[in-house]
Amino acid sequence: MKVSVLGYGTVGVGVCEMIEKAEGLELVSVLVRPGKADKPFKVTSIDEIVNDPEVEAVVEVMGGVEPAYSFVSAALAAGKHAVTSNKALVAAKGPELQRLASEKGVAFLFSAACGGAVPFLHNLALAVESDEILSLGGILNGTTNFMLDAMQRDGMDYADALKVAQALGYAEADPTADVSGLDALRKIMLACAVAYDKLPCEGFCLEGIESVTAADVKHFQSKGLVLRLLVRGGMQDERLYAFVQPVLLSASSPEASVLKNFNMAKYRGVNSGDIVLIGQGAGRYPTASAVVRDLSDAVHGRRVMMKPSCERVEADNSVVSCRYYVRLSASLADALPFEEKELDGELCRGVTAPLAVTDMHARVKALRDKGESVFFAAMEE
Amino acid sequence: MKVSVLGYGTVGVGVCEMIEKAEGLELVSVLVRPGKADKPFKVTSIDEIVNDPEVEAVVEVMGGVEPAYSFVSAALAAGKHAVTSNKALVAAKGPELQRLASEKGVAFLFSAACGGAVPFLHNLALAVESDEILSLGGILNGTTNFMLDAMQRDGMDYADALKVAQALGYAEADPTADVSGLDALRKIMLACAVAYDKLPCEGFCLEGIESVTAADVKHFQSKGLVLRLLVRGGMQDERLYAFVQPVLLSASSPEASVLKNFNMAKYRGVNSGDIVLIGQGAGRYPTASAVVRDLSDAVHGRRVMMKPSCERVEADNSVVSCRYYVRLSASLADALPFEEKELDGELCRGVTAPLAVTDMHARVKALRDKGESVFFAAMEE
Repeated sequence: MKVSVLGYGTVGVGVCEMIEKAEGLELVSVLVRPGKADKPFKVTSIDEIVNDPEVEAVVEVMGGVEPAYSFVSAALAAGKHAVTSNKALVAAKGPELQRLASEKGVAFLFSAACGGAVPFLHNLALAVESDEILSLGGILNGTTNFMLDAMQRDGMDYADALKVAQALGYAEADPTADVSGLDALRKIMLACAVAYDKLPCEGFCLEGIESVTAADVKHFQSKGLVLRLLVRGGMQDERLYAFVQPVLLSASSPEASVLKNFNMAKYRGVNSGDIVLIGQGAGRYPTASAVVRDLSDAVHGRRVMMKPSCERVEADNSVVSCRYYVRLSASLADALPFEEKELDGELCRGVTAPLAVTDMHARVKALRDKGESVFFAAMEE
Repeated sequence: MKVSVLGYGTVGVGVCEMIEKAEGLELVSVLVRPGKADKPFKVTSIDEIVNDPEVEAVVEVMGGVEPAYSFVSAALAAGKHAVTSNKALVAAKGPELQRLASEKGVAFLFSAACGGAVPFLHNLALAVESDEILSLGGILNGTTNFMLDAMQRDGMDYADALKVAQALGYAEADPTADVSGLDALRKIMLACAVAYDKLPCEGFCLEGIESVTAADVKHFQSKGLVLRLLVRGGMQDERLYAFVQPVLLSASSPEASVLKNFNMAKYRGVNSGDIVLIGQGAGRYPTASAVVRDLSDAVHGRRVMMKPSCERVEADNSVVSCRYYVRLSASLADALPFEEKELDGELCRGVTAPLAVTDMHARVKALRDKGESVFFAAMEE
């Protein structure tokens, strides 16, 4: 299959190198920015690729919604397969792109947009054809996992953990999308679309790791607990839930053994039971490996990951309840329905009765809106 | 795709149920033993299936090499896809079956033969098209993992752990194939065939869990170590290695978090890095889920897992070295090149200098041939 690559950044370079060595794939051209076409295979106009009858597939690794959406649409409309690593694109425009791809009978695959090298969406798309998916979850952001691991195993505070993550290239200069949980949320959106034919677009509950302190971590450790930022998605009472929040786990849980910047994705099938997939969630070659596996999959005839019938829905996170560990000011010790609590100087640390995810996130937002400092994490069941 | 199932035991019943609900699959007939055809869809002659032009694929879940080999060969020769869960069949006759399938342009897939529900061979087959696989490994026998976990977490001795495993249906009345490591060895043979186009057929090193005692486990725990039965395979200096042996790991290692009868399979790709897959390694529905995923994969056009060029080779386990934990009689404290050792009553427990796997297995065999009782396990690097 003859392939053109749109974008020649970190992942694009890796994809080009891998295509050169892969069975059944051949690199035709690469779309670069004007002025950057210093080799004959580099082109600066998307039209050159879309109008090239030799090109059978495009790989989009530019990032962002535009012009990626216009370019991928044009390629699909011209009857070319499309593979992308761009989670923002698929979260925003996945259903439209899939419908166009299905109309034209070409593939639209996006494994690399969720979990980097971890073959999550690929396996999920295969599983849904014969199994019912009860739930989805895992650790889908390597930056925050690296930071939490550094805070726990190396005793760093939040600011130092972030600095080290930035120095190693795991966190961007503006780390907001990672530490807020937004990056992980986009990934669980895509997984829900693959598993349930529904793309959740609003109604999310999102809590990142920005509130955790070194003192909190020390306290968890004294209880034998490990903190991870987890995503969850699934269907309950015919309502789709999808949320991101920190979770406290026993040190022997599989999630606790996911170290550094690794990702872990899991699904529970009625027949398969729990399937857990672990690997590197980012980086040039890990991400490129997922892109190129999708190309091989398209060669073998796979066309859909999302379905053309995929519809946008509002998530309903009131259908899941958790007990929550909370740290807040001692003066707020009665602000939440604690089942147990202890005072720690001017702080109160406690565990609540089971609360709906929506309810807990709203309660904390109300406290923060009043200027209160609150950390919370779900207790693993 | 219209499917016939050969065999109606534990897995066969699960496969039939799943086919009925799967997208794009339809059950035509099931081969049962003479006298068991109590429903119209049950047939007792393989010829009825092989000569039925409506049947596009067969699933073989009978087990054993014959008559499975004759039946699958006949189905492939008749131009039908074949999917099997039978590791003995693929280990013995995989290359012949694959060559026949490739000649006829049909699929021969066997995900369920290695790791049950864990989609190991499926992902490995996709990865090798664009990545170089550096090594393979993991926990591929659920029976022994259940027993080791019961000995470690519940303090059982070997005999009790085996009894509980048998009572729960995890171990057979004759547990030899599991506890000796032979079952795990067959699975790493298949994984090597997929990853390296070479099926190792001799030169193996195989050590199971039969020598471990409750006192050994107590000693590991005092050192913060966890015992697992691990497989390893890979290429080193252009030689293929493939072996099974107990390994001592730190309690925080991912393998140590694999509990009960779960399996964990992993591969290391040059580009992907480490990919780890965890799930249930046996059981009706988990195994059936892998069979039916292979059928879906064949619908989408995938034809090969092994390649027709796959050749049989001798494994060379002298290319890998490990440090070994050993427990033997105190009178043999100088029988091995220990780097450290301690006396424990009439026993000596020590850790050797690095030894080639072949060398260590041969040394222990020589001691056992003299009637000595020896336990050994590789130390995780």
